[in-house]
Amino acid sequence: MSEINAKLTEEQILEVERQLAIYSQGVKEIIPNEELEAKITKSVVENRPLKIKLGLDPSAPDVHLGHTVVLNKMRQFQENGHIIQLIIGDFTGKIGDPTGKSVARKQLTDDEVKHNAETYFEQFAKVIDMEKVELHYNSKWLSQLNFEDVIQLAGKITVARLLERDDFEERMAFRKPISLHEFFYPLMQGYDSVVLESDIELGGSDQHFNILMGRHFQEKFGKEKQVALLMPLLEGLDGVEKMSKSKKNYIGIDESPQEMYGKSMSIPDELMSKYFELITDFTPDKIKSIKADLEKSVLHPRDAKMLLAKTIVRMYHGINEAEKAENHFVTVFQKGTMPDEIPVVIWEGDKEISILDLLVDLKLLSSKSEARRMIENRGIKINGNKVEDPQLQVSITDELIVQVGKRKFVKIEMK
Amino acid sequence: MSEINAKLTEEQILEVERQLAIYSQGVKEIIPNEELEAKITKSVVENRPLKIKLGLDPSAPDVHLGHTVVLNKMRQFQENGHIIQLIIGDFTGKIGDPTGKSVARKQLTDDEVKHNAETYFEQFAKVIDMEKVELHYNSKWLSQLNFEDVIQLAGKITVARLLERDDFEERMAFRKPISLHEFFYPLMQGYDSVVLESDIELGGSDQHFNILMGRHFQEKFGKEKQVALLMPLLEGLDGVEKMSKSKKNYIGIDESPQEMYGKSMSIPDELMSKYFELITDFTPDKIKSIKADLEKSVLHPRDAKMLLAKTIVRMYHGINEAEKAENHFVTVFQKGTMPDEIPVVIWEGDKEISILDLLVDLKLLSSKSEARRMIENRGIKINGNKVEDPQLQVSITDELIVQVGKRKFVKIEMK
Repeated sequence: MSEINAKLTEEQILEVERQLAIYSQGVKEIIPNEELEAKITKSVVENRPLKIKLGLDPSAPDVHLGHTVVLNKMRQFQENGHIIQLIIGDFTGKIGDPTGKSVARKQLTDDEVKHNAETYFEQFAKVIDMEKVELHYNSKWLSQLNFEDVIQLAGKITVARLLERDDFEERMAFRKPISLHEFFYPLMQGYDSVVLESDIELGGSDQHFNILMGRHFQEKFGKEKQVALLMPLLEGLDGVEKMSKSKKNYIGIDESPQEMYGKSMSIPDELMSKYFELITDFTPDKIKSIKADLEKSVLHPRDAKMLLAKTIVRMYHGINEAEKAENHFVTVFQKGTMPDEIPVVIWEGDKEISILDLLVDLKLLSSKSEARRMIENRGIKINGNKVEDPQLQVSITDELIVQVGKRKFVKIEMK
Repeated sequence: MSEINAKLTEEQILEVERQLAIYSQGVKEIIPNEELEAKITKSVVENRPLKIKLGLDPSAPDVHLGHTVVLNKMRQFQENGHIIQLIIGDFTGKIGDPTGKSVARKQLTDDEVKHNAETYFEQFAKVIDMEKVELHYNSKWLSQLNFEDVIQLAGKITVARLLERDDFEERMAFRKPISLHEFFYPLMQGYDSVVLESDIELGGSDQHFNILMGRHFQEKFGKEKQVALLMPLLEGLDGVEKMSKSKKNYIGIDESPQEMYGKSMSIPDELMSKYFELITDFTPDKIKSIKADLEKSVLHPRDAKMLLAKTIVRMYHGINEAEKAENHFVTVFQKGTMPDEIPVVIWEGDKEISILDLLVDLKLLSSKSEARRMIENRGIKINGNKVEDPQLQVSITDELIVQVGKRKFVKIEMK
């Protein structure tokens, strides 16, 4: 380091420090810190962009705010002229789970992979400039490996090292089976970094082991080692578990402004600072002043949360939609009246229908059993009146308003 | 079983019992016993030969009596009309050791593999009928596997199961590294059995784990499982360690009749029965009567050993050579005189030479330090007189006889 630094101009030193401060913000761990500095220094001195890698699982393309923690970090690199390498892990996706035990890892066709990738890209475009991104499908190189290549690759890692991964270690300890093929997922991720000569790999802190595989294999193949940049995991709306689709504690970045705003208002108070830091585009200074105001009780937590909710909607739908969502929220939830704009459904069905069928037909709920449960939980209103009988027959009239829970409304108009 | 047995004729039952008795003789373990009986029964009823597999490592083609334990068992199957499948493990041989650590597993060229295989076959021809053997090189199918195939294969076995192999278990316990590629050698051996649909795999008892891999993978691929037939390991001339080239305690089946006979006479008394049982072509009845005679002291152990030695030479060189070797042994070692035929070296070197240089020049010993040790151990004679001084200068004359140990002689003739 000192050798490179010796040649730096004052301006270059400041530039390195500036970038380092941005990339370090909100990060959970940088492995190793000094190599990140060396990489940035080299990039500044040689005026050469760094390659920033992010691997994507093509089986679950719904992007939620949890993912944007990493995406926002990618955007920072991109804004400073570095190159984003997005890797679609389609090789794994196309193989599926050979034991057939993992539902999550079902076998995907080429079309499904392509469709899922495009779904990612559309959503990513809200955060990063997709035109400047390098796109890679890892089947391109992984499907070319033969048995001999695989053995050469496997010869570069020990069984003990693989068993250090938390989930493997735990399963060995509890005598739960680990199928041998599972050892290959971290190998593949590491080998991707060898092929792409990535400088930095981003990921959530749960990717700690897999991202270090990249460093391991790059070294074994005589390449410069990548730096691991691990972001904290974002807890979901329950305030406890990592935000994920399966836990239903997420805010999807494709959700409607109203839904997004409403859900954001249910973020637990104690997570607000973390959300400001990890998923908004606010500067570190601005976040610091919000935190200070909250501590001094100059800012009411409800108002801070409304600012957070509005910011989230603004980032994914623009400022106009953000203001509309805020007004809607204030009208419905704070003033206790119904919103001005309610989605309208033109009714083409029977004039007499059971309440369960009606809720499913209007797509307010996905099944009759769900509808029944919602009625039992006193969550359904017609024209402002709670429905208490799941056997209720409804006479359809013009201007009938059906309400599910606090935030879902539909107005029926006769055809 | 009972269902098949119900249909058997008396004659068929006797045939199954006859074969079972032969194949079980001298065996250490049959896994599982009842499946061997079922296989033989099916073979007798359907008049269909069984496929008997033996895998060969192409890196060490010198065959010694230790190998013939398995070869003799193969011969028994062959004599009863079954098909021998010899698999040259050339795929592994051509890959070598990717970590570069194992000297034993150096990378072999196609030519080396072919040459080593032919060396095997020439030697095997002394025990089995090579014309009736099915020859396979496993690179034929293993080199065709791609990464996806390998993952499908790896998905059929757990890490815990592989770690059960004694040497892996021990290395894990002592925190010695196991490179991931090593897990693939048992997988390959197992997959070979899938491809070849082997009925029985033969091997030494140290192949227990690897041969069971064949059963495991055949089952996973929906094939009939092979039976493992494990032979005892033959201790070498030291009476302790498994016979092997590296331990120098072996009798090679390509050695000269005299060398073979002489070495056989140094087999420890307590191993004689085992040798009769495992490496001769004597019937169980004959072996039983030899054992009885030894116990009753009707047969002197020296005479039993001479019978063993003569039998071994007869099996690999024919009866005439066996008788000559016996006569030679009696003349030199029992009557204490020198043999009739001593190899002659025409001397072209100096007329004065140190004893150490002489022994090395005559290729009686491979280094001067070895020669010095032999003199210190009083193992060198010139014209029947023990050499006691390692500094001795020898004057070369016609008809000088140099003797190393009990059995090596060279007669020097002046040019």
